[in-house]
Amino acid sequence: MLDKASATLDVATVMRDLGRRARLAARALANAPSATKDAALRHAAAALRGSAAAILAANARDVADAQARGVKGAFLDRLRLDPARLEAVAVALEEVAALADPVGRVLAAWERPNGLKFERVATPLGVVGVIFESRPNVTADAGALCLKAGNAAILRCGSESLRTSLAIAEALRVGLAEAGLPEDAIQLVPTADRAAVGAMLAGLDGQLDVIVPRGGKSLVARVQDEARVPVFAHLEGVCHVFVHAAADLEMARAIVLNAKLRRTGVCGSAETLLVDRACAATHLKPLVTALLDAGCAVRGDAATQAVDPRVTPAAEDDWRAEYLDAIIAVRVVDGLDAAIAHVETYGSHHTDSIVTADDGAAARFLAEVDSAIVLHNASTQFADGGEFGFGAEIGIATGRMHARGPVGVEQLTAFKYRVHGAGQIRP
Amino acid sequence: MLDKASATLDVATVMRDLGRRARLAARALANAPSATKDAALRHAAAALRGSAAAILAANARDVADAQARGVKGAFLDRLRLDPARLEAVAVALEEVAALADPVGRVLAAWERPNGLKFERVATPLGVVGVIFESRPNVTADAGALCLKAGNAAILRCGSESLRTSLAIAEALRVGLAEAGLPEDAIQLVPTADRAAVGAMLAGLDGQLDVIVPRGGKSLVARVQDEARVPVFAHLEGVCHVFVHAAADLEMARAIVLNAKLRRTGVCGSAETLLVDRACAATHLKPLVTALLDAGCAVRGDAATQAVDPRVTPAAEDDWRAEYLDAIIAVRVVDGLDAAIAHVETYGSHHTDSIVTADDGAAARFLAEVDSAIVLHNASTQFADGGEFGFGAEIGIATGRMHARGPVGVEQLTAFKYRVHGAGQIRP
Repeated sequence: MLDKASATLDVATVMRDLGRRARLAARALANAPSATKDAALRHAAAALRGSAAAILAANARDVADAQARGVKGAFLDRLRLDPARLEAVAVALEEVAALADPVGRVLAAWERPNGLKFERVATPLGVVGVIFESRPNVTADAGALCLKAGNAAILRCGSESLRTSLAIAEALRVGLAEAGLPEDAIQLVPTADRAAVGAMLAGLDGQLDVIVPRGGKSLVARVQDEARVPVFAHLEGVCHVFVHAAADLEMARAIVLNAKLRRTGVCGSAETLLVDRACAATHLKPLVTALLDAGCAVRGDAATQAVDPRVTPAAEDDWRAEYLDAIIAVRVVDGLDAAIAHVETYGSHHTDSIVTADDGAAARFLAEVDSAIVLHNASTQFADGGEFGFGAEIGIATGRMHARGPVGVEQLTAFKYRVHGAGQIRP
Repeated sequence: MLDKASATLDVATVMRDLGRRARLAARALANAPSATKDAALRHAAAALRGSAAAILAANARDVADAQARGVKGAFLDRLRLDPARLEAVAVALEEVAALADPVGRVLAAWERPNGLKFERVATPLGVVGVIFESRPNVTADAGALCLKAGNAAILRCGSESLRTSLAIAEALRVGLAEAGLPEDAIQLVPTADRAAVGAMLAGLDGQLDVIVPRGGKSLVARVQDEARVPVFAHLEGVCHVFVHAAADLEMARAIVLNAKLRRTGVCGSAETLLVDRACAATHLKPLVTALLDAGCAVRGDAATQAVDPRVTPAAEDDWRAEYLDAIIAVRVVDGLDAAIAHVETYGSHHTDSIVTADDGAAARFLAEVDSAIVLHNASTQFADGGEFGFGAEIGIATGRMHARGPVGVEQLTAFKYRVHGAGQIRP
């Protein structure tokens, strides 16, 4: 795949062919029985285990190449597979197989006075494009979620993981074939040529129905800016915890520490703490001290700086910052309205939480904050498909179209209307 | 609005301002109580009636201008208002007021083992752009549906109806103000400059969340091709009736005549009749004769031409044609699979119907035809939000994202997740 012959391939032609094959596969998948799709996923898990040696060898070459180019740290770690990680990928396939089939669900059903019976029924979306960066396991995770929802997948991995991703994709295709499904249901873009991404963003001549970018901010921004097809993505998670006047201090402390520090690199980690001026005298110092003592840097407004000399001044940019690190911005606000206004002004419509014993204040925060996920008395780190009970997610979306919040298999479906009559004609 | 001063306005500036105002209004609308939105709609109906003379005078000027430019026929008829039509517009506003509020519906609710309570709740979409052609009543109809769903609307009318549409929009804004809602919740683009459409297609600096084109094929095609924001639309309705081997002839005749001829100009009118070869000997001639006798031109394949000398030959283009007229293409197909293949090859994924007494065949047709609306033993002319019980529709969508089929007030909403906890943190 990486030899000279492929380098001379016309990328536009390759991508057009991928799109055409994906559409044909999607038609077959759309009506595949649940048991067949699930069998393909289990066969794919077996094929992954069976070809573990080849996949790990491909990965070793990818890792060696990356190291030779000076790649290190977290990026290299995300690229690297080992037997335990590969087994986790196989188990994830089996977990997706065990989920309920989202296709065919009757979402609504009603009858009209003329006797016509209407049903809104979940259908696949069609062809899903996934553009991701270093983690080769996304090949299996994203491919499996698309398959479960009856969609064909076109996967574009980062160039560093191309050998590994191709080896994983091959196992998926073995699984599809063993179940009698078209191998083209899951296709990996076989070239590292960046023109392939451009072709996907242009929609592959109408064959691509949606794109899901999985990666850093620059990838997501490019996809959101340039894609001519719908995108399920979030650019960033500038998530807030608002400690309201009626917040229990112990609950607030536990939630703030967890929301910020459980894992700082996830999109649902809190980046800004807002404290109601009405409880600042009692709550601000304990919260700030707890954060500082836990190793978190605090950038605060004047009121926050006053409670501890370790607090550094927050600049305007800090209110918009997605640190993804042990850093938090802290601001004292004048009550619920000011907190909502701050979140609407600086937030990213991802995930925001209020801590309060006042149900009325909570109801207003949950109604008026226009974010995909709004929580009352819970950590923002619950922003995760698994925590929602979705089983697995392909990402979190902050747009308002079609999918919002965790994108699991149900969010990868569309719907149609089935109408049952007995000869009705329209007057 | 139409004087020289406005002609020198920078359209880009005007449109940017409209977008900014719409977003602010949308924030206010999103949390407006149902009663307030409904009061605005009823006040708007009253204002329409109160300013009937001014609206009809504006319309008379629009009609006179159009006639002076040589406009006539159906286009002129769509442009023209009279007291009865204006009253119908006011009644339509009151009917939208009487619909259930689609915002705030709890679409799903569940609890996780850790005690977190999840709700998926309907929210407004945000700012909806509607681009329409001659019918000035769309100003009221579309504005009302957007308002009911808590969305701000930016409406762009055809240049021929600008005076009428401005007069109607003014009444809507009076209604909004009387209910204490921001007038900018419904804005009409105040210029006939075509650059305004380009600005909307570009998304008004991110302020426009979705565009709904209402008009002819060239408008819809341009919007679908150029819009950088999601579009709810159908380009055409190439709708089929398939008369299966097990179809009752009388039922088939009634459905075919109604599907084709009840109204030929609507998107749900049938354009192609497929007849199963297994029943062609008994069904084809009666169906074709009934169509011909009712004044419908029939373009048929060889088998169809053989049953009546009035049938003219169908060319390949006829299978893709949206006649919107008393013309139908008729083809004999080899059973259910061939019928599904024909619909998937030539159809437009809008509305397709099977006539059969065989429930198994119907189930396969309804599952495998990938159209927004699939019917069994019913006329394709039921493809209408009112017939679905949606109360009113802003259009019919054939895309798979977010909305599909009739787009009523529920389809003009998005959702968010509300999560209720008791201090939960994520392990």
